Amino acid sequence: MDRAVVDHRSDEFAQLLPRIAPLLKQVFGTKDGHIVVFSGSGTGAWESAMVNTLKQGDCVLSVANGHFGAGFGLSGRRLGFEVQEIVVPWGAEVPADLIEDRLKADKNGVIKAVLVVHNETSTGVTSDIGAVRRAMDAAGHDALLIVDAVSSLASMPFEFDEWGVDVALCGSQKGLMLPPGQAYLCASARALEASKTGGSPRNYFEWGNQLRENITGKFPYTPNTLMLFGLREALIMLVEEEGLDNVYARHRRMAGGVWAAVEAWGLKFMCQKPRFRSTTVTTVMTPEGIKGADLLARTRNRFNLVLGTGIGDSAAKAFRMGHLGALNELEVIGMVAGVEMALHEMGAPVKLGSGVAAAEEHFSAS
Amino acid sequence: MDRAVVDHRSDEFAQLLPRIAPLLKQVFGTKDGHIVVFSGSGTGAWESAMVNTLKQGDCVLSVANGHFGAGFGLSGRRLGFEVQEIVVPWGAEVPADLIEDRLKADKNGVIKAVLVVHNETSTGVTSDIGAVRRAMDAAGHDALLIVDAVSSLASMPFEFDEWGVDVALCGSQKGLMLPPGQAYLCASARALEASKTGGSPRNYFEWGNQLRENITGKFPYTPNTLMLFGLREALIMLVEEEGLDNVYARHRRMAGGVWAAVEAWGLKFMCQKPRFRSTTVTTVMTPEGIKGADLLARTRNRFNLVLGTGIGDSAAKAFRMGHLGALNELEVIGMVAGVEMALHEMGAPVKLGSGVAAAEEHFSAS
Amino acid sequence: MDRAVVDHRSDEFAQLLPRIAPLLKQVFGTKDGHIVVFSGSGTGAWESAMVNTLKQGDCVLSVANGHFGAGFGLSGRRLGFEVQEIVVPWGAEVPADLIEDRLKADKNGVIKAVLVVHNETSTGVTSDIGAVRRAMDAAGHDALLIVDAVSSLASMPFEFDEWGVDVALCGSQKGLMLPPGQAYLCASARALEASKTGGSPRNYFEWGNQLRENITGKFPYTPNTLMLFGLREALIMLVEEEGLDNVYARHRRMAGGVWAAVEAWGLKFMCQKPRFRSTTVTTVMTPEGIKGADLLARTRNRFNLVLGTGIGDSAAKAFRMGHLGALNELEVIGMVAGVEMALHEMGAPVKLGSGVAAAEEHFSAS
Amino acid sequence: MDRAVVDHRSDEFAQLLPRIAPLLKQVFGTKDGHIVVFSGSGTGAWESAMVNTLKQGDCVLSVANGHFGAGFGLSGRRLGFEVQEIVVPWGAEVPADLIEDRLKADKNGVIKAVLVVHNETSTGVTSDIGAVRRAMDAAGHDALLIVDAVSSLASMPFEFDEWGVDVALCGSQKGLMLPPGQAYLCASARALEASKTGGSPRNYFEWGNQLRENITGKFPYTPNTLMLFGLREALIMLVEEEGLDNVYARHRRMAGGVWAAVEAWGLKFMCQKPRFRSTTVTTVMTPEGIKGADLLARTRNRFNLVLGTGIGDSAAKAFRMGHLGALNELEVIGMVAGVEMALHEMGAPVKLGSGVAAAEEHFSAS
Repeated sequence: MDRAVVDHRSDEFAQLLPRIAPLLKQVFGTKDGHIVVFSGSGTGAWESAMVNTLKQGDCVLSVANGHFGAGFGLSGRRLGFEVQEIVVPWGAEVPADLIEDRLKADKNGVIKAVLVVHNETSTGVTSDIGAVRRAMDAAGHDALLIVDAVSSLASMPFEFDEWGVDVALCGSQKGLMLPPGQAYLCASARALEASKTGGSPRNYFEWGNQLRENITGKFPYTPNTLMLFGLREALIMLVEEEGLDNVYARHRRMAGGVWAAVEAWGLKFMCQKPRFRSTTVTTVMTPEGIKGADLLARTRNRFNLVLGTGIGDSAAKAFRMGHLGALNELEVIGMVAGVEMALHEMGAPVKLGSGVAAAEEHFSAS
Repeated sequence: MDRAVVDHRSDEFAQLLPRIAPLLKQVFGTKDGHIVVFSGSGTGAWESAMVNTLKQGDCVLSVANGHFGAGFGLSGRRLGFEVQEIVVPWGAEVPADLIEDRLKADKNGVIKAVLVVHNETSTGVTSDIGAVRRAMDAAGHDALLIVDAVSSLASMPFEFDEWGVDVALCGSQKGLMLPPGQAYLCASARALEASKTGGSPRNYFEWGNQLRENITGKFPYTPNTLMLFGLREALIMLVEEEGLDNVYARHRRMAGGVWAAVEAWGLKFMCQKPRFRSTTVTTVMTPEGIKGADLLARTRNRFNLVLGTGIGDSAAKAFRMGHLGALNELEVIGMVAGVEMALHEMGAPVKLGSGVAAAEEHFSAS
Repeated sequence: MDRAVVDHRSDEFAQLLPRIAPLLKQVFGTKDGHIVVFSGSGTGAWESAMVNTLKQGDCVLSVANGHFGAGFGLSGRRLGFEVQEIVVPWGAEVPADLIEDRLKADKNGVIKAVLVVHNETSTGVTSDIGAVRRAMDAAGHDALLIVDAVSSLASMPFEFDEWGVDVALCGSQKGLMLPPGQAYLCASARALEASKTGGSPRNYFEWGNQLRENITGKFPYTPNTLMLFGLREALIMLVEEEGLDNVYARHRRMAGGVWAAVEAWGLKFMCQKPRFRSTTVTTVMTPEGIKGADLLARTRNRFNLVLGTGIGDSAAKAFRMGHLGALNELEVIGMVAGVEMALHEMGAPVKLGSGVAAAEEHFSAS
Repeated sequence: MDRAVVDHRSDEFAQLLPRIAPLLKQVFGTKDGHIVVFSGSGTGAWESAMVNTLKQGDCVLSVANGHFGAGFGLSGRRLGFEVQEIVVPWGAEVPADLIEDRLKADKNGVIKAVLVVHNETSTGVTSDIGAVRRAMDAAGHDALLIVDAVSSLASMPFEFDEWGVDVALCGSQKGLMLPPGQAYLCASARALEASKTGGSPRNYFEWGNQLRENITGKFPYTPNTLMLFGLREALIMLVEEEGLDNVYARHRRMAGGVWAAVEAWGLKFMCQKPRFRSTTVTTVMTPEGIKGADLLARTRNRFNLVLGTGIGDSAAKAFRMGHLGALNELEVIGMVAGVEMALHEMGAPVKLGSGVAAAEEHFSAS
């Protein structure tokens, strides 16, 4: 990315997107999905997903099982949609059964879309999107399935086609290892059709213009050119050099080391059920008497280790350990060591070396 | 900008905006205007300006004196506003008198905003925004004045306060010399008030959230962090090191060299009146029998010189010479030389050295 | 350093050296020493130190307590000097008493210089240069004291003036945290005088030309301009931002963590006496039955951890853990963890977590 | 080059030299020559060429037809060789006939090497090295032919094998378009043989160690690793992407534009005969009454154009226009324009536009 800006009307630039799109499709797990790229963030991508596929006033069903799930619904409300919300405790996965109940109850087909977050960054919970699709099918409901994949894509398997996703969306700054500033969507044929014939008033986030210009590798208005060079490189590294299966296995391996350490410390995961633990971020409840903010301040000031704050309701009593992107075993161990030293120094009953030893056993066994 | 991404919740990051905002205000020419920053482009900034200040269905008066003026109105229409358009020939400036007539005729105050482009990139025409304000005042009309300053800001004087502008907007990739991907708005107290109590359904481009978080240097959702480091550096270079008056004078000086060459060649400017010629871009009509696209292909292939295409209606019979950003006399002369060699080789009655000699006389005399 | 090359005859360039030299003097621990800069390596700096101060055929006394000590003497022999060598076992410090004996025996003053390595990178031994000076004084001998500070300078205290060093030399790629390619010398008044009136045939490494041009910030022939920008930045970071005392304390702290781990594993240091252990590199003897090369291959292949090979005689049965430059506790722990996992996997009696726990106790206690 | 430093003992690093050496051989024009790489400058390369092939006290014949030719001889004298010098006026080419005379007169074979500069940067003269070889052969003398190719290599043809060169040497910062800091030599079988059995006392610049380690892609002591990455990229651009013949043709074309301008201005070349004009640098005599330093100050201060100073004897009455490396027609025209504006403003009888028109005619005709 560290290069001179090229003219986004030039031939050199026009060769970027035809190289990027097929790789991005592999990451989304789609054969026929349509890729759309915007300057913006995940929040912008939420908006693009909704205003293209839904009419203002349309009803959507949104699941709040954490900060970002709640935010997705709230942004829908602000954009003029009627939002029905399923609220479950933080730490729970997206409840496919409750979605099925709600959709079955919606005899008149009022609900036009279901909004869910694949990997809830605030709680460290990865939900089963295939199960959501099966629930929708079981209800015989034709709402669109819109999935936030911001902190999952390119770090764990995403199966757009197999799961019957209609719109999936992502930002540049997580699994794609780029600076923030760009957002990516993948739209199904059905979602695209909805955007052609309906949707809400929109301009910047409109898909049709983008897709029309993208055919020749161009954009209807100035894109973030440098980020596209970075994206091409990141995709080549992930898809062609390391291989997506290896990338996903590496994330599972790294996460396993973190989980072993948390268990060795005797601390609780915010994620309620082990099988929904996220392989990209682990949210841990602080021990009795220790505030999350104090722990973060200590790891940062003493060990230059920046952990994630608890977000929203859990800010005071949780902290987050991220483990996605370019990361290896020794970096995971360094993070684990920083946390265990800080906890020890703050008087928590955490034995020095205990978490690291557990992580090492995990890594050495495999 | 070529640096590691910092956590946008860190203290280091929080020091950026308090340094940037006062400098950006100087560039906008405002004391009390409110600065808002988004990941996006000028097109996104158009949208942000409208959805915050106008209700869907509101009527706006838009001036189409070129490609971007027409696009500004069109984007309003797509976003659900009723757009009244004043269409003048390409090459004309924004007609303050026609605006005054329209506003006077709008007895019931149906028109809520006037949309104009300060520097029309397609035609090379800089309009007099002060005159537009005077026309609005003369009509005794209270519409908001929304100004696209994408290709003028930081290259020529912009007087937000003095001209009574309500919203001005800009992108990162022109006078601010950054890669594309970020947009900046300046909102008057009146525009901000309108956004608080009204506006259209919106989320990503909403001002209130941004301004609330910006108080402590933060953002409601992930910003383009690296671009903000670049912006700080660019503003320091422009405002503190070179000085805005010197930057504007330099642009006038560079433009003067280009104009002298065009006159020496005997070619016509698309800009109808010399006093409205833009100091950042010059749109030139190609000689009889020469297509713009052929000229551009020749300068690019033979001399690695990328000129701007004619845009929209004028694509075939015009070309554009950009002269903004980090640029000096010898680079202007290189561009002039490339054009005159290409024209000469294509059989146009352009004497080799004639344009350069005129530019050199302009530069040497001052 | 990542910037356009500047003309090394320009005023901008001429401001570099006057900023660099005083900072570099602080790092060398000198008030009046003369700084000389070359494109080259530590090997080139050895040569520069000798050919400026010694006549071909002159006799020097060199101490071989490791690979680089031996190499220093060997290079002297190749350059035409007569080299008397004191050879001690690898792992021993420079023996001040033996130096004193030799100098006392040199009644006729045949020996013109004593060559020693401050921090022997191959064995992880830091010798006491002050003690060497005291031994020379006790012998009443006027040989010059020439010290290789390649892997000590800017990481541990160096007291050029206090220790009575005549020439100290260093490269760019260790404590100064730059890429390899540049070498620095500090010469005493006496050494400089010797170079003016004597020395060997020389040209590239000659001091006089350099010092004469350096007065105005220039060089007699093209220097490595970009490296000088990097050097300025590195020195500002070390001397002005972190502070040399803090830099040295940080290195002692990091080394302490490594030593605690090695002791917890029950492995032997190559350095014979704990008080001479180097705070920049630790050379460890591999456990019975494990080859250094196999250990290195394993840490590299499984954990992307590049340890130093044993060098020279100790290649097969030792490995080196570097801990200098920009480094913090968690990086040290990552290195320790990689070593202990690899040793454990290779069947050594090393308990997972043992070394890290010891390092954490060291770090947490201070 | 803008990348993390790699371990120079790693496999990744070991792949650099086997890629670089064959490309560098093509640039030197050799099949069997031996490539040696050092951190250093052209001055260091002079030294390396001499100390490896000549015994101290040996006699060399050196040609001073400019600053660097004189310097080459002077450095030989400083290194302990006896230097016989042929001095010709600045602006003259290397006189093959005088070399022949001297060698013929050297009945006893006292002269061991002939030192010449291929492209004399101070005067803008490219000499005919093939003619020098023919002169040596005509004299039946077996001295080695050592050629400084610092400002010619990779910009104009160099035929090491065909011209019977024994040692050619170059730095990184000219035609190879890298920052300064590295030097390259090419040695014939005969030169290498001389180094094995003779030469002067030496260590840093010794060839044998280098070549032995280079077999496996390694170096005997820390090389400038980042520069080698840059060198690989530069060689790929020159040899594989653009092609050496195209690179040489481009330099001839650029030089032709400069020469046309100088002739249009009516100024004199320092190079006496047109066929020896250098295609990488043109040294021009200033008009009556204008000092070189004043001209340079004016182009730099008014147009940000850095010309080369006259060097040595010609400093006051000449200036140098460089035209090598990554350069195109419009950059040449910018340089020409800057010079002609400055000359005009200083009262020289130079018509604005005259030089540029001549350069444009040159470029447009071809």
